[in-house]
Parts: sequence; structure tokens; C-alpha cells
Amino acid sequence: MSESVTLVPGNTLITATAEEGRQLAIKMSRLIIKVTQPDAAVREKLRPIYASDAAMLIAVGQTVAIEFATIAAANNYWKAI
Amino acid sequence: MSESVTLVPGNTLITATAEEGRQLAIKMSRLIIKVTQPDAAVREKLRPIYASDAAMLIAVGQTVAIEFATIAAANNYWKAI
Amino acid sequence: MSESVTLVPGNTLITATAEEGRQLAIKMSRLIIKVTQPDAAVREKLRPIYASDAAMLIAVGQTVAIEFATIAAANNYWKAI
Amino acid sequence: MSESVTLVPGNTLITATAEEGRQLAIKMSRLIIKVTQPDAAVREKLRPIYASDAAMLIAVGQTVAIEFATIAAANNYWKAI
Amino acid sequence: MSESVTLVPGNTLITATAEEGRQLAIKMSRLIIKVTQPDAAVREKLRPIYASDAAMLIAVGQTVAIEFATIAAANNYWKAI
Amino acid sequence: MSESVTLVPGNTLITATAEEGRQLAIKMSRLIIKVTQPDAAVREKLRPIYASDAAMLIAVGQTVAIEFATIAAANNYWKAI
Repeated sequence: MSESVTLVPGNTLITATAEEGRQLAIKMSRLIIKVTQPDAAVREKLRPIYASDAAMLIAVGQTVAIEFATIAAANNYWKAI
Repeated sequence: MSESVTLVPGNTLITATAEEGRQLAIKMSRLIIKVTQPDAAVREKLRPIYASDAAMLIAVGQTVAIEFATIAAANNYWKAI
Repeated sequence: MSESVTLVPGNTLITATAEEGRQLAIKMSRLIIKVTQPDAAVREKLRPIYASDAAMLIAVGQTVAIEFATIAAANNYWKAI
Repeated sequence: MSESVTLVPGNTLITATAEEGRQLAIKMSRLIIKVTQPDAAVREKLRPIYASDAAMLIAVGQTVAIEFATIAAANNYWKAI
Repeated sequence: MSESVTLVPGNTLITATAEEGRQLAIKMSRLIIKVTQPDAAVREKLRPIYASDAAMLIAVGQTVAIEFATIAAANNYWKAI
Repeated sequence: MSESVTLVPGNTLITATAEEGRQLAIKMSRLIIKVTQPDAAVREKLRPIYASDAAMLIAVGQTVAIEFATIAAANNYWKAI
């Protein structure tokens, strides 16, 4: 693992809004790809492949959904306390 | 990521009913596809592919189920308090 | 999304029994398929395909399991209070 | 859905032990297969297929794990109270 | 299902440490494979197949992760009380 | 299972930060691969395969997301108490 990749931007799961939580989920899921395939050239080659493949897009969606579940719980679902 | 795509419509996970929570789950899962494949023409081409493929339809269902779990928890399962 | 499809029958996750909760999980997972592929003729063609495919049947089982987890939590696992 | 199939044996998620909870998870996951493919002859034909396929066996394991998570939570993990 | 297979070694999810919890997750996931494919000879034939297949190894990892989530919750994450 | 492989580095799920929790999730998911395929030479051969395959990279991301959910809960999402 390339230790220089930041895996959790800001080092916190807490976000101001649900929208930002969702953006964080996307970023965190992409950073796992980055740390697993550190070569940017390879990642650039893979992007059009999964972005044009229905099954892979659905799988991306599943991953983001799982990340978001954790972030949403961390933020108590952005409910006023 | 195209920052102009709204990922959580209304910027809240709270909905009035379970039915609306389910609709939100579907929308949120589709918005991840949209942000991952921003080209509407490509998405239009992919839609009939996954909508006619049993395995992909099942995978869509799994994604929605995961999104819905988060939304349902956020709404305390729409139980009266 | 065809807005005319009811996604949560009865608009509630609450059921009298675990058995009924399980039936609801099956129905809710099928309604996602329905809303994603609104053409009944296509769905009818797909049914024998996934019902005769071991891998797809297992995937159906995973989807129902995820839906059921949410419904079971909503019902406090049908435990007497 | 064949309404005559019992989906939750005993109509309860509560079991005396973790071992029995695990057995229930297996049974419940198989009953979803049964209700999705009601033809016993077809199911019998599919069994040797998935039982001899490494990827499908792993997928069966994932399904049981998800079902078990719900059952274990329902039983408070079989911890003395 | 071969009723003679023990599905939860020790019939408890409680372990002394996180490390032992992880070992239990691996064992429990393997026991589901065993009960689904009771023929040891077939399982022996399948082992080198999934152990040499990147996609299957990743899927094994997903299954263990799901089992471990349950075990970790059962043990309150091995935190001192 | 090769009993000599440490499955949970430090034998704890508790980490100082979310970033370290994410690193632990990656390590723990890789250690399951290691224990399932103990031959380092085989693992080295598999690494470029999954690191260059979009679908497998996405699956790696799903596994890490599931592991991280457990670690994040164990750490109460790294929120000040």
C-alpha cells in the first residue's frame, strides 16, 4: 500500500450535510482504488471501461452505498440533536 | 466527479413515508451512476442493457436495498415516536 | 422511474410476524425490478432465466436478505416488548 | 410467489443457541430459493451445479452471512442478559 | 443439510480477542461451504481453484468481512467495559 | 488456515484516527487473502491481475468498505466523547 495516499480526506467522517457525506463516500471509495492501483496511467485506462459497463456501474453504486451507510451513521444521519 | 450533480435530492435523508424513502433510495443509487458516467448519451445506451439483463436487475435491487437500509434507519423506520 | 408503481405495499415496514416480514422483503425486492424494467413482457421473459440459474437465484437470496435485515430491525425482530 | 411456502420456520428469528441460529440462516436462505424456483425438479438439477462451483459456494456463504447477521442481532448474540 | 456439521465452533460468538474473532469468522464461513458441499473430495478439488483466482479470493474476503461484522458486534468490539 | 498469520494487526480494532482505521481495513482485508492463499508467489502473480481489472478493483473496494464499517463502529466513528 502506498502510504502517501490519504484515505480519508480531512481525516474525519463528519460532514456538514448529507450531500457532503455522499461526496465523501464517493471520494473514499475512489481512494481505495487509487491505493490498490497506484499507477495513474492504468487507472485512467480503466475509467472508461467501468464507466461504460452497466454491471460495473451498478457495482460502483453498491460500494458507494456501503461507504455512505458508515458515514451517515457517523453523522447521526444529519439529524438535529 | 462532476460537482454539479446533486447527490442527495433535498440534501436530507428524512422522508415523510417509507414509500418516499424507497423512492429516495432509487434516486440516490441512480445519481451515483450519473456522477460516475456523466455522459447522458452513454447512460441512455446502457439503460436498456441492464433493464433487460436478469443478473443486472438483481444487482440494481441489491444496491437499492443497501441505500434503503440507511434511509430507513435515518427515519427510525417511519415509526411513530 | 414509473411513479405509478407502489414500492412499499401498505407504505409501512411494520408487519405482524417474521413470516410476513419475509414476504414483504420478497415483494419489495421484486418491486425494484418492476420499477427498473416496467415492461411486464420483458420481466416475464427474464423470470425463467433467473429462476433456472443457480448464480442468479443465490443473488436473489442476497437481495432479499438485505431487505429483510431492514424490515426485521424496523419490527424490533418481532420480539415482545 | 407460492404463498404455501413457509419462509421463516416457526415464524420466529429467536433460537436457543448460536448454532441453531446458523441453521436457521441456512434454512431461510434456501427457502428464498424455493419460493423463487418452486419446481423441485429444477432445484434438484441446480444443486450439484452450485455445490461444485467455487464462486457460487462463496456466494452462498455471503447470503448465509447476511441472514445470520439479522438472526444474531435478533437474539442479542445469544448473550446472557 | 448435513446436520452433523458443527456450524458455530463452541456454539458461541464470544471470543477473547479480535484476532480470535477473526479466526472464528473464517471458520464459520468455511463451515457454510462444508455444509453446502459435504463431499470432502469435491471441496479439496475446489480449494486450489478459488485460492488461485483473484476474483474469488476477493469474494472470500467479502464473506469473512460480513461474518466478522456480526462477531465483532457480539463482542462489543472487544472494548473494555 | 495457516495459524501463523496475524489477522488483526495489534489485535485491536481501535485506532487513533479515521485514516488509521481505513488503513487497518485495507490490511485486514489483505490478510484474509494471505491466509486463504498462503503462497506468496501465487499472491504476487495475482496482484497485477486484480490491480488491472476494473471489476476486481471495485470488488476490492466493496470488501474494504465492509471491513471499515466494523472498524468505524468499534471506534464510535472517532467522535469525541
